[in-house]
Amino acid sequence: MEKRTEYLDDKLIAYAKSDIYPFHMPGHKRHMQEEADPYAIDITEIDGFDNLHDAEEILAEAQQRAAVLYGAKKSYYLINGSTCGILSAVSATTRRNGTILMARNCHKAVYHAAYLRNLTTRYLYPVITRFGIQGVITPESVEAALREDAMIQAVILTSPTYDGVVSDIRSIAEITHRYQVPLIVDEAHGAHFGFDPYFPETAVRLGADLVIQSMHKTLPSMTQTALLHVCSDRIDTRVLERFLNIYETSSPSYVLMAGMDRCIRLLMERGKELFSDYVVQLKTFYQNVDKLHKIEVSRGWELPETECFRFDPSKLVISATGCGLTGQQLYQILLEKYGLQMEMCSGEYVLAMTSFCDTEEGYGRLFAALSEIEAGNGAAPIGASMDVDGSDLTGFISRIYQRNEKQFEIAQAVDMPGEEIDLAAAGGRIAGDYVYLYPPGIPLLVPGEVIDAGTIAGIRECQKKNLNIKGVLNDRINVVI
Amino acid sequence: MEKRTEYLDDKLIAYAKSDIYPFHMPGHKRHMQEEADPYAIDITEIDGFDNLHDAEEILAEAQQRAAVLYGAKKSYYLINGSTCGILSAVSATTRRNGTILMARNCHKAVYHAAYLRNLTTRYLYPVITRFGIQGVITPESVEAALREDAMIQAVILTSPTYDGVVSDIRSIAEITHRYQVPLIVDEAHGAHFGFDPYFPETAVRLGADLVIQSMHKTLPSMTQTALLHVCSDRIDTRVLERFLNIYETSSPSYVLMAGMDRCIRLLMERGKELFSDYVVQLKTFYQNVDKLHKIEVSRGWELPETECFRFDPSKLVISATGCGLTGQQLYQILLEKYGLQMEMCSGEYVLAMTSFCDTEEGYGRLFAALSEIEAGNGAAPIGASMDVDGSDLTGFISRIYQRNEKQFEIAQAVDMPGEEIDLAAAGGRIAGDYVYLYPPGIPLLVPGEVIDAGTIAGIRECQKKNLNIKGVLNDRINVVI
Repeated sequence: MEKRTEYLDDKLIAYAKSDIYPFHMPGHKRHMQEEADPYAIDITEIDGFDNLHDAEEILAEAQQRAAVLYGAKKSYYLINGSTCGILSAVSATTRRNGTILMARNCHKAVYHAAYLRNLTTRYLYPVITRFGIQGVITPESVEAALREDAMIQAVILTSPTYDGVVSDIRSIAEITHRYQVPLIVDEAHGAHFGFDPYFPETAVRLGADLVIQSMHKTLPSMTQTALLHVCSDRIDTRVLERFLNIYETSSPSYVLMAGMDRCIRLLMERGKELFSDYVVQLKTFYQNVDKLHKIEVSRGWELPETECFRFDPSKLVISATGCGLTGQQLYQILLEKYGLQMEMCSGEYVLAMTSFCDTEEGYGRLFAALSEIEAGNGAAPIGASMDVDGSDLTGFISRIYQRNEKQFEIAQAVDMPGEEIDLAAAGGRIAGDYVYLYPPGIPLLVPGEVIDAGTIAGIRECQKKNLNIKGVLNDRINVVI
Repeated sequence: MEKRTEYLDDKLIAYAKSDIYPFHMPGHKRHMQEEADPYAIDITEIDGFDNLHDAEEILAEAQQRAAVLYGAKKSYYLINGSTCGILSAVSATTRRNGTILMARNCHKAVYHAAYLRNLTTRYLYPVITRFGIQGVITPESVEAALREDAMIQAVILTSPTYDGVVSDIRSIAEITHRYQVPLIVDEAHGAHFGFDPYFPETAVRLGADLVIQSMHKTLPSMTQTALLHVCSDRIDTRVLERFLNIYETSSPSYVLMAGMDRCIRLLMERGKELFSDYVVQLKTFYQNVDKLHKIEVSRGWELPETECFRFDPSKLVISATGCGLTGQQLYQILLEKYGLQMEMCSGEYVLAMTSFCDTEEGYGRLFAALSEIEAGNGAAPIGASMDVDGSDLTGFISRIYQRNEKQFEIAQAVDMPGEEIDLAAAGGRIAGDYVYLYPPGIPLLVPGEVIDAGTIAGIRECQKKNLNIKGVLNDRINVVI
């Protein structure tokens, strides 16, 4: 029998009509109730509608509203996601063949920027905390790195992380500025920061020089929309704009841009009230789950500030290891039995993303599901394929993100001729490509790094646990010749 | 009185409700009648919906449908417009510090790719035809350039141009392949090619190695959507995919992708009939305007093949110089008196873009307007600010796109320290930034080129004619120190 063609459009519409509740991005949770037909407002740069790459009128004003809202000196609409904001920020603050100090748990876009600019990379390693979650970048490690290498031209780190860990941006900014180096904060997961004291303050107001926020991740804005904030005079906006012009399409979508303006306007007009209701919802949820005994929902687990400076409570980090369930099993049960789609699962937990667009029904369904699971009613994992051998998952995650020896810079390694070899034979060879777990996509191995026995063992363990590992296909890995 | 805040969303909705007829991009002409709320289908990479950057399921199938439709070996969805397709194609076919042979009238994305890869540029100059329209790149010029410089790693040119001029891709591809060099064709304005013999054949089927098409320009697809076709074995798709991964957001919009699939499906299921109706509409329109005496609508003006190899009849190039009207005046009259929004205007003509989504009402209104204007009823230009001094506009356009002496490569010049000086004092200095007329955005001056008296005179003339010239602000220009 021939396979029936499945069209993306049909499948998305069917999904929209399903009863699956989205505890994942985008932050509009699929109910913004846009009445305009998107095609009806999808225009080109005709008279009266300005030009994003040379904004002087309505788009300049819209971007200015975003700057005022966040307290930035200048803000830019990004229609190629946080990706192009990161590429532009790194490119504008480093010279070709320069040096960057970057957190090793940065988004791949930072590695790509290092490739494009042919940068020497110096790494800041996050503290590994409970459940293998990557914690803060400490101010001390930033200071030590800057003291050691006077060639560093920019510092970039991710705060909050995908798991909600926030670093001490104020202290880090003070340090980098003492060394005359700008600080870039990838705040892709923190566009909701600063609107209510229940959430951490945004890096925009804590001394960072450039801040990138994904609007779609935690706010009601369409996927692929983001903001780049310039927060100090240390940034040459002419150079920055040159790179935005390079990395973004010359045909930006008015549908995406109109959605951004709609979101900013909503925050300006009703932000206080919407966030206040949101905080009540979250507090209620946390109070409810406090009644559970075997299932834990993190609020940073009372980790010390040296591991988790602040925690973003919008992220529900849920662990049911107390019920004998791995993250992957919990994820499957929540999806298949309760119609709750989580954002991701890791070894020992699942991650739910919330926004002010979530409903009481959603929180209620999640709490009811967790209660049932704890009571043993949701036990038998359906379709779960991961082994529950009780192995030390936390230790495993720490091990796979080990520090590798660097033989070549990224651009050198990527541009070298390469070959694909058996993983078993890769010990001592140099990686020619990235190897990472997805999500979240933090590289275990970066091009130019030496593949040692620890890395091979880590990859093998990921395979054994059926984790989604990229960069190793059919047990083959790319190395440079 | 305080200025009332004007929100983008409101303004777009108001525009959608207006009676203005769009003879401009995007090709859906704002009536695709999408019933799904865009937010309802705007998801992230959840289970079952694949991942554009590592497509294996529904997105792989969708892209495969595009490849089959166009006859490509492999096709990629682009959600950062043709821009990212051009950046990726050039990056994948050249080495860092390599050499590229490019048409001087390429899109700025090609110049940006040359900057990013630190390329040495060799230029192909288009023949200048009637009205200053840039004509073909001749096969002979390609052969001469390749013979002269054995370091050239890739060739790129734009066909069709913004004005509809198509070069002889088959002959050019034969030449570049004889020199073992891949040919990239920026066919951004030709996604409708190859569906009916009334239009030129697509470069995909004429021997090009990589072809980039904007779906939104001439097809019913949303702005910012495009396709990159791989058409031969000369392209290493692994390297190409690496660059797509770099230049495109890691959060691609499912709304944009669903729209692409919808468009491809429409072409597969009803393309023959839709194009056949479209051809009838265009032929009727051309027959009608043939009855006019003073207003001319181009079908390539019967230029010799050495100037215009083929012409894309979907572009209506309309000149009313016979009525004493400049392009800018004609543009204003059509907009203000007849509610017809053109795509652009040049010195002596306006450009209307059509697609199979245009209506009889639209063509009828345009023909009626042109008839009235010719009859003298539309004479007095409203708000027209351009002088009608009868100066030789064609010669002017040819002059401003003169060949400049190159002192530095793009990356060298852009990365050098620069200063802003008075245009009057810029003679003999080296450009530090681009200077171009917008639209279409073809640079008069590229960073690293010597600013001579001819260029300064050309810029002055553009200013005098009130043309939208970018790169010169308040009579100041950027030069390298």
